[in-house]
Amino acid sequence: MTTLQIADEVATALAENRPVVALESTILSHGLPAPRNLTVAARLEKVVREAGAVPATIAVLDGVPRVGLSSSELDRVCTAGDLVKLSLRDLGPAYALGRSGATTVASTTALAHQAGIRVFGTGGLGGVHRGARETWDVSADLDVVATTPVLIVCSGVKSILDMGATLEVFETRSVPVVGYRTSRFPAFYRRESEFDLSWRVETPAEAAAVFAAGGRGMLLANPIPAAYEMDADLHDRLLAEGLRKLVDQDVRGKDVTPVLLEHFHTASEGVSLDANEELVVSNVSVAAAVAVALSGEQFQ
Amino acid sequence: MTTLQIADEVATALAENRPVVALESTILSHGLPAPRNLTVAARLEKVVREAGAVPATIAVLDGVPRVGLSSSELDRVCTAGDLVKLSLRDLGPAYALGRSGATTVASTTALAHQAGIRVFGTGGLGGVHRGARETWDVSADLDVVATTPVLIVCSGVKSILDMGATLEVFETRSVPVVGYRTSRFPAFYRRESEFDLSWRVETPAEAAAVFAAGGRGMLLANPIPAAYEMDADLHDRLLAEGLRKLVDQDVRGKDVTPVLLEHFHTASEGVSLDANEELVVSNVSVAAAVAVALSGEQFQ
Amino acid sequence: MTTLQIADEVATALAENRPVVALESTILSHGLPAPRNLTVAARLEKVVREAGAVPATIAVLDGVPRVGLSSSELDRVCTAGDLVKLSLRDLGPAYALGRSGATTVASTTALAHQAGIRVFGTGGLGGVHRGARETWDVSADLDVVATTPVLIVCSGVKSILDMGATLEVFETRSVPVVGYRTSRFPAFYRRESEFDLSWRVETPAEAAAVFAAGGRGMLLANPIPAAYEMDADLHDRLLAEGLRKLVDQDVRGKDVTPVLLEHFHTASEGVSLDANEELVVSNVSVAAAVAVALSGEQFQ
Ligand SMILES: [Mn+2]
Ligand SMILES: [Mn+2]
Ligand SMILES: [Mn+2]
Repeated sequence: MTTLQIADEVATALAENRPVVALESTILSHGLPAPRNLTVAARLEKVVREAGAVPATIAVLDGVPRVGLSSSELDRVCTAGDLVKLSLRDLGPAYALGRSGATTVASTTALAHQAGIRVFGTGGLGGVHRGARETWDVSADLDVVATTPVLIVCSGVKSILDMGATLEVFETRSVPVVGYRTSRFPAFYRRESEFDLSWRVETPAEAAAVFAAGGRGMLLANPIPAAYEMDADLHDRLLAEGLRKLVDQDVRGKDVTPVLLEHFHTASEGVSLDANEELVVSNVSVAAAVAVALSGEQFQ
Repeated sequence: MTTLQIADEVATALAENRPVVALESTILSHGLPAPRNLTVAARLEKVVREAGAVPATIAVLDGVPRVGLSSSELDRVCTAGDLVKLSLRDLGPAYALGRSGATTVASTTALAHQAGIRVFGTGGLGGVHRGARETWDVSADLDVVATTPVLIVCSGVKSILDMGATLEVFETRSVPVVGYRTSRFPAFYRRESEFDLSWRVETPAEAAAVFAAGGRGMLLANPIPAAYEMDADLHDRLLAEGLRKLVDQDVRGKDVTPVLLEHFHTASEGVSLDANEELVVSNVSVAAAVAVALSGEQFQ
Repeated sequence: MTTLQIADEVATALAENRPVVALESTILSHGLPAPRNLTVAARLEKVVREAGAVPATIAVLDGVPRVGLSSSELDRVCTAGDLVKLSLRDLGPAYALGRSGATTVASTTALAHQAGIRVFGTGGLGGVHRGARETWDVSADLDVVATTPVLIVCSGVKSILDMGATLEVFETRSVPVVGYRTSRFPAFYRRESEFDLSWRVETPAEAAAVFAAGGRGMLLANPIPAAYEMDADLHDRLLAEGLRKLVDQDVRGKDVTPVLLEHFHTASEGVSLDANEELVVSNVSVAAAVAVALSGEQFQ
């Protein structure tokens, strides 16, 4: 298996059991338009540092898996325009063929674990697609979360998905889903879905304790900050329009999420873009606090 | 990962390669009413001891995972009334938050393996729920059995499930299903379903040999004792009524099995309760015999 | 777990890091009629040797798992007529009960990995069966490929399957599917299906590099040699007839593939038999070349 290139700052922190937070690159290369992605990339790293942890953005550049990017590497991820989306199964080909790409939740989780990082902050996970009874389209994120002991802070799963089915798969695959100061599963742009959670924690220390005790991959579900929650009617209208667009343009597979996000961003005149940025920042901030708690002596 | 509290008697037996049988606690806390659960708990431990093995009932008490319960701990599981059902993914939260709960097939299997116990006797496994094509409701038991090298003696899967679909998942996930003195998959309250098995064994020694040779989790399917088999018409009527009740009362997820069992127990005026007790006792007795065989020198 | 009997030639090659190719026995015992299977068995071993690798045909004989068969053992697999098909979950029972059987893709992959063999050449994988939304019939091959680091060279999946659903499961389970000199997923008897592949390689060395870099089980999808590709109309007619036959005769599970292949072979008057032989020979030849490349110093 290919050896990771871990940035010095990240490697030192890991060696000294200091807190590190993994960050994905797909949100930068595919999820947000330039130049906004550049400001978000900088903001995410800043939020992690301010909490006392070290950020480790992950990407594959010229066939090399990098854990922790320099500022010029971050720029490249945000502006190069030639990065493909790399899921876990794409890593071998990308390494061997010398390709560059951004890592998804699945591949970021796997590489974080390979590097020894235990906490990852992101926006929303993939899951069971609507219509998956017919198409069998289920994200690789679920399988990776079920088999990799990394704590992922997120605002639930992407809006387009079959949320109920996705939650059932988390149960089937023994993935703990724990609410961060909530007893409801969050709905990405909205703070609450209709689905209850069995477990909730109130502090980063509690989240760290749950993860350390269980020893399994888990989701810490953190709702979007109230100030940025999308209006319910707007949300439902955008979602309905976006789903219709997917059907009309026959969009499938890897292209679904970018197309849907694009519709949300355009049709909401930037409201969803603000929401998306703020929920990721909030999740990464919680992730950093959990990583700090997890670096305490009792969890070594 | 949290350290198990293994009872002295169990720990000593494991250290000396003497036979141990894992027992779940959900059947005591949720599957049988008090005070019947107390007599069943005592009877199961007695059956294991008489066969020459050590019983290890598993539960989480005040956040501590216990393998092998004292008689006051067993009492607490049977009578406290405040124990929740803990599946594998609930263990981390329960440990960290100091909660008490009964372990399901999934969590008992995982904890048995963590403790070094190779045989587990229970009633029936979870599986694919009827209507799972729509609801995606599939028990975590399947995933755990497919990935954990523990031999589980059971009378098939719970009556409410889609048995055909469940058997397909066992095949897909490479879980051996071996009949104990039967070539048909048992149907919990009934000795036979319509489904044939590819493999059967006649003795505990053969079952032990199959398990040791394969090195994978497996089901040893043991039919309910003939004297306690439920009348076919009664069984079909109770099942139809119970399924209707679930729909009428909109019962789902973790609540399904208790509600259905409750209906069986009430509407059959205790016939199903006797059946349930006797099949568990029979399975645990076979489990003990297999554990004894497995402790032979050739399997160390 | 049962110890493998590895033939001296295979064991020596593995110890010296020389190339070895695993071969399955189900194609010999169930996939091809005698005496054709004898000539194919000999031809496959010859192709491997000519490429500079050692063939290791795998089967279970009298309860003993054998990796690398003597010529009399190969004869027995081809002519005995009493060998059952053994999937991964059947190995424990077969070992313990002293049975003989041919290994499927799932069990061959698992045993190859247990023996330390990294490359396996075969015809086509199992996958999601047509109608699996109702029947839940999904091959164990998928689960094994997703969890076992072996490179499998094949011409896609068996014709009878739901190819689109199968490809989705490969994605969900993070199985890389890489085209060998093709950008389309091959359709067994036909060089191309309607499905695009994300990755392709042009040489055995590239395939070896992708596998070594990724460290996961992967499929190298190699189309049938053009000279033996089945005519499209004939193929579609045979498939439609075969599927109708399965329904008419209520054929299911393990019996589906043999019945379908039998129909193809009879109704095509041997055209499909030639095609099947040639695609396997081609895949095994590519597998040998990849194994040779993988034995290079850079991959040790
Ligand atoms: Mn997909
Ligand atoms: Mn469920
Ligand atoms: Mn099947």
